[in-house]
Amino acid sequence: MKYLGSTNCYIVIGEHSNPMEILTTTIGVSTKGQGDFVDLTDKVNQCLRESKLTDGQVTIFVIGSTAGIVTFEFEPGLIKDLRNLYEKLAPRDKDYAHHQTWHDDNGSSHLRAALQGPSLTVPFSEKRLMTGTWQQIVLAEFDTSARDRKVVVQLIGK
Amino acid sequence: MKYLGSTNCYIVIGEHSNPMEILTTTIGVSTKGQGDFVDLTDKVNQCLRESKLTDGQVTIFVIGSTAGIVTFEFEPGLIKDLRNLYEKLAPRDKDYAHHQTWHDDNGSSHLRAALQGPSLTVPFSEKRLMTGTWQQIVLAEFDTSARDRKVVVQLIGK
Amino acid sequence: MKYLGSTNCYIVIGEHSNPMEILTTTIGVSTKGQGDFVDLTDKVNQCLRESKLTDGQVTIFVIGSTAGIVTFEFEPGLIKDLRNLYEKLAPRDKDYAHHQTWHDDNGSSHLRAALQGPSLTVPFSEKRLMTGTWQQIVLAEFDTSARDRKVVVQLIGK
Repeated sequence: MKYLGSTNCYIVIGEHSNPMEILTTTIGVSTKGQGDFVDLTDKVNQCLRESKLTDGQVTIFVIGSTAGIVTFEFEPGLIKDLRNLYEKLAPRDKDYAHHQTWHDDNGSSHLRAALQGPSLTVPFSEKRLMTGTWQQIVLAEFDTSARDRKVVVQLIGK
Repeated sequence: MKYLGSTNCYIVIGEHSNPMEILTTTIGVSTKGQGDFVDLTDKVNQCLRESKLTDGQVTIFVIGSTAGIVTFEFEPGLIKDLRNLYEKLAPRDKDYAHHQTWHDDNGSSHLRAALQGPSLTVPFSEKRLMTGTWQQIVLAEFDTSARDRKVVVQLIGK
Repeated sequence: MKYLGSTNCYIVIGEHSNPMEILTTTIGVSTKGQGDFVDLTDKVNQCLRESKLTDGQVTIFVIGSTAGIVTFEFEPGLIKDLRNLYEKLAPRDKDYAHHQTWHDDNGSSHLRAALQGPSLTVPFSEKRLMTGTWQQIVLAEFDTSARDRKVVVQLIGK
């Protein structure tokens, strides 16, 4: 650790002499459709542990436009509360213009995904994610049917 | 591709011997004001194609506090639905405290931009964005007047 | 600066011969509880200035599941408007299922944090953040009590 002049910024990592690397992995996750949340934290940690990297950041990105990545305390109460929040923001049974385009029923899925976003970037240090104890990395399924998702886990660091 | 021990994580990239690079480009985009969405996917792909990088990630960041970057299926129905969602979240004609500060009319623009966020990070592999077929990268103009936007496209990888 | 073929993409940085680095710093920030916003822009700039990096990107990540990172024009009117927006999205006094889990009162905090997100990535060039003049980097405290926060500031670049 190195003190950075007059600020209260401390360099914790990055003084390694080995070069930076970027590693990309893809995780397959099966979901049960809208309202399903899958905790990815263990899998992200496994990817980190089995790489050679110790310090850097990981980006979690879900492929597709009807799912999102969200971080929250993964417990049943909050899962229920989040379902209610998304339903309030973009109700499932509303008559969306998107439904006319494809004769589809997942307008609410697209809107929730657009607002929540498909990716999250988390720093890690000494091979540990710098997340809080109650801060899990979660795949939020917004689509109206069960889906097989591909989630990219990309590590950048040393 | 290399199998990572006991997990279902596969290293797809990162075993290149060439060093990592970071490239920053700026794209100019003219918008028509609130409710305008501009698909940036082709331009981001062009930046990627004309760089030497094959594997890594791209960050798309819009400069300014009244626009956002959002990913969704770029079709007219959803564009209409998204306009309605943002209008519900932060109605344009509400009397915002921000209007008193600057005698301005774009309080709704600032709120929509704050919630949506100015940036998006997308992995790429073998010179292809790892996005879904229906997952475009879109500039969302929230300001109440037409604007000339600068969007940063930053590539990190090998 | 180098012109990239037929696109309107210009390489601004990245042709340095020195290798890429990643630096991680942690900033401590005391907050006053829900509705408090702390402008981190000066501290992020200090971290950047006191590093050796000139071109790259910075990720700002708040540890914990009841705070967020948001970018907006940091002025009192908008702060008031944002408080109203978050209150509308996830009212503080609602009876959340999360409250039953922990006999806690911060369900609204978790929901606001999940939706806003814990991190932000901002490009920098020539030792300057590529943000707009009215685009500050802000810690949003959503928890119902005052907190001592740790914010990770991670620089990647050359």
